[in-house]
Amino acid sequence: MEQPSNYLDAMRANAPLVQNITNYVAMNIMANVMLAAGASPAMVHAKSETPEFIQIASALSINIGTLDEDWIDRMILAAEAAKACNKPWVLDPVAVGATSLRRDVGRRLIKLSPNVIRGNASEILALSGTLAQGKGVDSADPVEAAEDAARALAGETRAVVAVTGATDFVTDGTRAARVPNGVPIMPSVTALGCALTGLVAAFIAQQEDSFESTIAALAYYGVAGEIAAAKAQGPGSFQVAFLDSLHGLSGSELDTMARIEML
Amino acid sequence: MEQPSNYLDAMRANAPLVQNITNYVAMNIMANVMLAAGASPAMVHAKSETPEFIQIASALSINIGTLDEDWIDRMILAAEAAKACNKPWVLDPVAVGATSLRRDVGRRLIKLSPNVIRGNASEILALSGTLAQGKGVDSADPVEAAEDAARALAGETRAVVAVTGATDFVTDGTRAARVPNGVPIMPSVTALGCALTGLVAAFIAQQEDSFESTIAALAYYGVAGEIAAAKAQGPGSFQVAFLDSLHGLSGSELDTMARIEML
Amino acid sequence: MEQPSNYLDAMRANAPLVQNITNYVAMNIMANVMLAAGASPAMVHAKSETPEFIQIASALSINIGTLDEDWIDRMILAAEAAKACNKPWVLDPVAVGATSLRRDVGRRLIKLSPNVIRGNASEILALSGTLAQGKGVDSADPVEAAEDAARALAGETRAVVAVTGATDFVTDGTRAARVPNGVPIMPSVTALGCALTGLVAAFIAQQEDSFESTIAALAYYGVAGEIAAAKAQGPGSFQVAFLDSLHGLSGSELDTMARIEML
Repeated sequence: MEQPSNYLDAMRANAPLVQNITNYVAMNIMANVMLAAGASPAMVHAKSETPEFIQIASALSINIGTLDEDWIDRMILAAEAAKACNKPWVLDPVAVGATSLRRDVGRRLIKLSPNVIRGNASEILALSGTLAQGKGVDSADPVEAAEDAARALAGETRAVVAVTGATDFVTDGTRAARVPNGVPIMPSVTALGCALTGLVAAFIAQQEDSFESTIAALAYYGVAGEIAAAKAQGPGSFQVAFLDSLHGLSGSELDTMARIEML
Repeated sequence: MEQPSNYLDAMRANAPLVQNITNYVAMNIMANVMLAAGASPAMVHAKSETPEFIQIASALSINIGTLDEDWIDRMILAAEAAKACNKPWVLDPVAVGATSLRRDVGRRLIKLSPNVIRGNASEILALSGTLAQGKGVDSADPVEAAEDAARALAGETRAVVAVTGATDFVTDGTRAARVPNGVPIMPSVTALGCALTGLVAAFIAQQEDSFESTIAALAYYGVAGEIAAAKAQGPGSFQVAFLDSLHGLSGSELDTMARIEML
Repeated sequence: MEQPSNYLDAMRANAPLVQNITNYVAMNIMANVMLAAGASPAMVHAKSETPEFIQIASALSINIGTLDEDWIDRMILAAEAAKACNKPWVLDPVAVGATSLRRDVGRRLIKLSPNVIRGNASEILALSGTLAQGKGVDSADPVEAAEDAARALAGETRAVVAVTGATDFVTDGTRAARVPNGVPIMPSVTALGCALTGLVAAFIAQQEDSFESTIAALAYYGVAGEIAAAKAQGPGSFQVAFLDSLHGLSGSELDTMARIEML
């Protein structure tokens, strides 16, 4: 694939406006992650303005973390609006296997053709119909266990599917790659996965190849995590250093440190 | 009582999934506090999934901080669901004395038998019927002024009542203890009290003695605060160091630094 | 004008309780900014308690960042309640030019006589009727381009209008001032503008001159930013150092570093 810096540099040059419909836990850190990286996040979800707002946005992300009845309609409407004006959108199916409400909403959303689906292994297993033992928002399954499910889900939905964890796995149903960048402390900071979903939306905006641009976003995230972990004493200082390194990381450093394995 | 490390180690070993219905201000920091400590938080509140979700959770916390009409039903339903399947739950009656809406919701929730009630002195005074001059979410009353109210509230509700402040006071109506751990800068960081409520829920999950496990949670929180304060230059760096120390604090350090006075 | 320290010291001495109706992204950082500065924030928005709560509060702030249908009524009701009991209120018209919903809500809110309107240049241009090219929550227009619009808006609404950016501009329609304090990294941290709106509400509470007290709040914010930037490696460490410096900044340091140009 192209150097990941090509995608990072393009994203920073465009500073894409991304509409995010996400959960209450993630809103602040997602906005900070996206701003640090160079994107322009907007947390907009009102039904009466989404059809208008999506037209000035370059991409959309939808995250079902703090789902409730009111938000489901907002999500469906936004995904439909994005498709109607040909803007790419990314789905984050948080804890989709945990309850029947989430399974139902997950099924409805994947029918609206997300361009990318990003989740942990338990979520991708649940979404692809394989029963997972997810106990909540954490992933109880290793990434490797979800590779077949990811390929099947990508084939079925035509979405790029990204399973993130110790080593990320990305596939568009035909191509596949692994990205082992990242550090074990990342799941000890809440909503870093949710924030990554918004960043993926920024990376795929105005790009033709969602598979490669998703891989670049994951590598960038993991490399920034590695740099931050070297300066951190725990999850508090890690989060601070992570925002700093997302902001300061150059394209050439990314290319040097990224470890992308095309399968 | 048992060494507080017994409760900390048990909580970390179980990594209990805790359902939290909390306020918008607290959601992110509460999740980060609970993850740093070793628990597994989930911010889930949809009425149509709570009865299903509470069955896979080990405990529930409910916080009325950013109350509104929609959320009241969610809280009542969740507390009822927790009782129905015998999961312990913790109430955080934020600013319960400030308005008639809060007093009414507070009364309705204590009728649903919380296992622990954690609040500041003004809140415990208001909840126990003594009129307090709370001007909002801050506590205008010292902890000592609420000890009798705490004992009465514990007797009436059979809950463990924890009044937190400069020196915390905990009672189950019969037993009582003081925990002077902690530092004065903690109220300068928003929602650290709210986050503690989630942590108490994690500590009492799967424990028989809610009184002792609540005391252990408070001592752990205060000790982590003391370690963090030694590294902090203000409330910003304190919050960062606090998450680090919650994560790094060992059971033996906790036992050494905890100052628990059984009354 | 008076020394800005007079306003900072008075605010800290009063520790005014400020009711904030703000967006989900801003709630936590706004509360932390206000606590660090010495104010007492409360995020209260339920329609059934606002009329009661506003009576114990000293000021109100309203921010339309994550607008939706439910929140519009809460905002209108709160602004009306504040006027009814003569409490000052501050409007933050986030992205008001982006959609017809926001333009409509912005128009409705300025009819309820905010005492201060704080926005970026694109927002003030949009609110004053001049068509701006705002692509979301970021400002695409320089502050200078909005000075005439700010004067017109102040004249029309009798509010103090504060346009914040590289150099802030403040006017009450007659008087005007510029405040060049601040640093370029501030827009890389989400919701610092929103948080400033709450701080302005705290500064104008119990003050007769909203023009001068708004200027003092802006100078204090910018000076704290300058001190923080000297210690920061990026937006993550900047946010931490910023909360520390808001907390630690003395009145005399403020007077020394404030650069206020009365026009």
